[in-house]
Amino acid sequence: MKIAVLPGDGIGPEVAAQAVKVLQALNSEGLKIEMEHATIGGAGYDAAGDPLPEATLALSRAADAVLLGAVGGYQYDSLPRPMRPEQGLLRIRKELNLFANLRPVNVYPELADASTLKAEVVSGLDIMIVRELTGDLYFGQPRGIHVNANGEREGYNTMRYSESEVRRVAHIGFQIAMKRNKKLCSVEKANVLETSELWREVVIETAKEYPEVALSHMYVDNAAMQLVRNPKQFDVIVTGNIFGDILSDEASMLTGSIGMLGSASLDQNRKGMYEPIHGSAPDIAGQDIANPLATILSAAMMMRYTFGRDDVADRIENAVKKVISSGLRTVDIYTAGTTKVGCAAMGDAVVAAL
Amino acid sequence: MKIAVLPGDGIGPEVAAQAVKVLQALNSEGLKIEMEHATIGGAGYDAAGDPLPEATLALSRAADAVLLGAVGGYQYDSLPRPMRPEQGLLRIRKELNLFANLRPVNVYPELADASTLKAEVVSGLDIMIVRELTGDLYFGQPRGIHVNANGEREGYNTMRYSESEVRRVAHIGFQIAMKRNKKLCSVEKANVLETSELWREVVIETAKEYPEVALSHMYVDNAAMQLVRNPKQFDVIVTGNIFGDILSDEASMLTGSIGMLGSASLDQNRKGMYEPIHGSAPDIAGQDIANPLATILSAAMMMRYTFGRDDVADRIENAVKKVISSGLRTVDIYTAGTTKVGCAAMGDAVVAAL
Ligand SMILES: CC(C)[C@H](C(=O)O)[C@@H](O)C(=O)O
Ligand SMILES: CC(C)[C@H](C(=O)O)[C@@H](O)C(=O)O
Repeated sequence: MKIAVLPGDGIGPEVAAQAVKVLQALNSEGLKIEMEHATIGGAGYDAAGDPLPEATLALSRAADAVLLGAVGGYQYDSLPRPMRPEQGLLRIRKELNLFANLRPVNVYPELADASTLKAEVVSGLDIMIVRELTGDLYFGQPRGIHVNANGEREGYNTMRYSESEVRRVAHIGFQIAMKRNKKLCSVEKANVLETSELWREVVIETAKEYPEVALSHMYVDNAAMQLVRNPKQFDVIVTGNIFGDILSDEASMLTGSIGMLGSASLDQNRKGMYEPIHGSAPDIAGQDIANPLATILSAAMMMRYTFGRDDVADRIENAVKKVISSGLRTVDIYTAGTTKVGCAAMGDAVVAAL
Repeated sequence: MKIAVLPGDGIGPEVAAQAVKVLQALNSEGLKIEMEHATIGGAGYDAAGDPLPEATLALSRAADAVLLGAVGGYQYDSLPRPMRPEQGLLRIRKELNLFANLRPVNVYPELADASTLKAEVVSGLDIMIVRELTGDLYFGQPRGIHVNANGEREGYNTMRYSESEVRRVAHIGFQIAMKRNKKLCSVEKANVLETSELWREVVIETAKEYPEVALSHMYVDNAAMQLVRNPKQFDVIVTGNIFGDILSDEASMLTGSIGMLGSASLDQNRKGMYEPIHGSAPDIAGQDIANPLATILSAAMMMRYTFGRDDVADRIENAVKKVISSGLRTVDIYTAGTTKVGCAAMGDAVVAAL
């Protein structure tokens, strides 16, 4: 198992180090994991003048999976757009063809109180959001800022999806639904957008291959409401890049503990990039207080999706559960009566609980 | 005051009738309101084969303000796109140049429990969302579905904003912020989209004319999270058409009582269309159980924004408050210990409380 580790910026290196620790612990028991580190984001820019240095891309291409910390920092905000940290992220997604972004949203019973929603609305919540990641407004051409016929500046971007782009991510949605509760909700805005009209048609066609899955369709504005009103109505959601960006962040915040949520971004061959959904949090970087569990859970997803090792994934996930139920908490999930620990100590605790 | 009343479909006619009742009651006291009715949406299609019949558009152009019920019904779902009810809505927005959609989100203390969010997170919530309504992906050209160079079908839409389109809605945002708590948050996705980059630049330029307003910028994914995490951090939000569609629906659901929320869609001269934010709810149409308060509150917004009659608006809003605190409830907001009433009875109660 060849893994490229890209710690990135801010708290990225700290949280990635804990996931590496967990993988190393598994290694010493016989898993054959090889890890190599490289820079990305602001760290890539600092080291090589590029948020996705060539060496990083080459390493990531050669690897079976990529483990990413986080990218971004205030000092890079004024760089020209192509040099900004998030461009490294967008480019590696595109270069590695990571079209299926899996974002599980689930609530640990012990942490349900951290939600701003009433406990009965979110306890037991378990949604999987499948977000298309290499198309849509993010990459659609033409795009830019120009002077229009009236002599004024105008910004424009293109939402664009081809049938095959929709079909491949729809398949992922259906396949995941088959392994879960067999409910798939496709989210778009077909009452206004032709792109969404095509999206819906292709999803309906694809559904023929999954007769056991109950497929529904929802407009994105309604989905944004339903996630607040009754999030437990959802099992698997499949949606485009920009709608998925918005809805998956909304959904993750329903849990009240985004420091606990990992993600996977997969290509057609189950090669993947794995990262926590939280950002680089530069304000708390270097203080050993960040929550490493989202990154550790991302490593578990790697075992499941890229390496087909559900057993190892389960072990990591159970270790995290054990640590949480033993009362250990980083500051972001701390409540009175629990035990506050730092980032590295949390990593150690997971290793011990493996 | 010339008002075009467009009841529309589903519960639209019932709720519009209650707002008309309120306006008539004010009329008998000396306000000079003239109302004329016309069809829109499915009703327009049934009557004239067009979701926005010519006569309806002409009447609406001639009026100072438009009062709309709601549009949409199952029986129209299979019509070709240009004939569907929502096209009537989109076209009247564009034809009347109603570029500024104002969507207040506020929680009545008596109804705070209806929210799925904890009472302390939403009680006292009072946000104004200003959504651009005549540009963006909704109207951008080119758009369509075609066969691409690889021989497969592809859907595409164009996100597009010119400087002047951004500037005029930004001004509305700043002006409203000046009358409130002087905080404006502009929401876009400038880390990915050039359209958003221009949006941000223009908002920053416009801010120079409003030195007292504290301006902030937020990415749309983060805004979707922050609305769940801590909605009370917001005063006024200004954003584009598609992001506004999603965020305003999310925000409205935070209140738990979307039957209470009205909206205004204004042109450059404060001519406006006023409508509840809820839909046509065909499943409960004709049963006299719909909540008319959102439409009545939309009529209050009409008095405030189009006719500059804050006094009359306050009177209507206070009458609604009185009715709520007296314990009258339609079924959507009913809880044990309150008094259930129908749509028409609720309208009568507001008239009595004027
Ligand atoms: C940083 C940004 C470009 C990125 C995105 O919009 O995809 C992030 O929000 C995410 O969801 O991974
Ligand atoms: C019905 C639909 C076209 C409309 C929109 O997307 O604008 C609605 O959702 C709204 O927000 O008024």
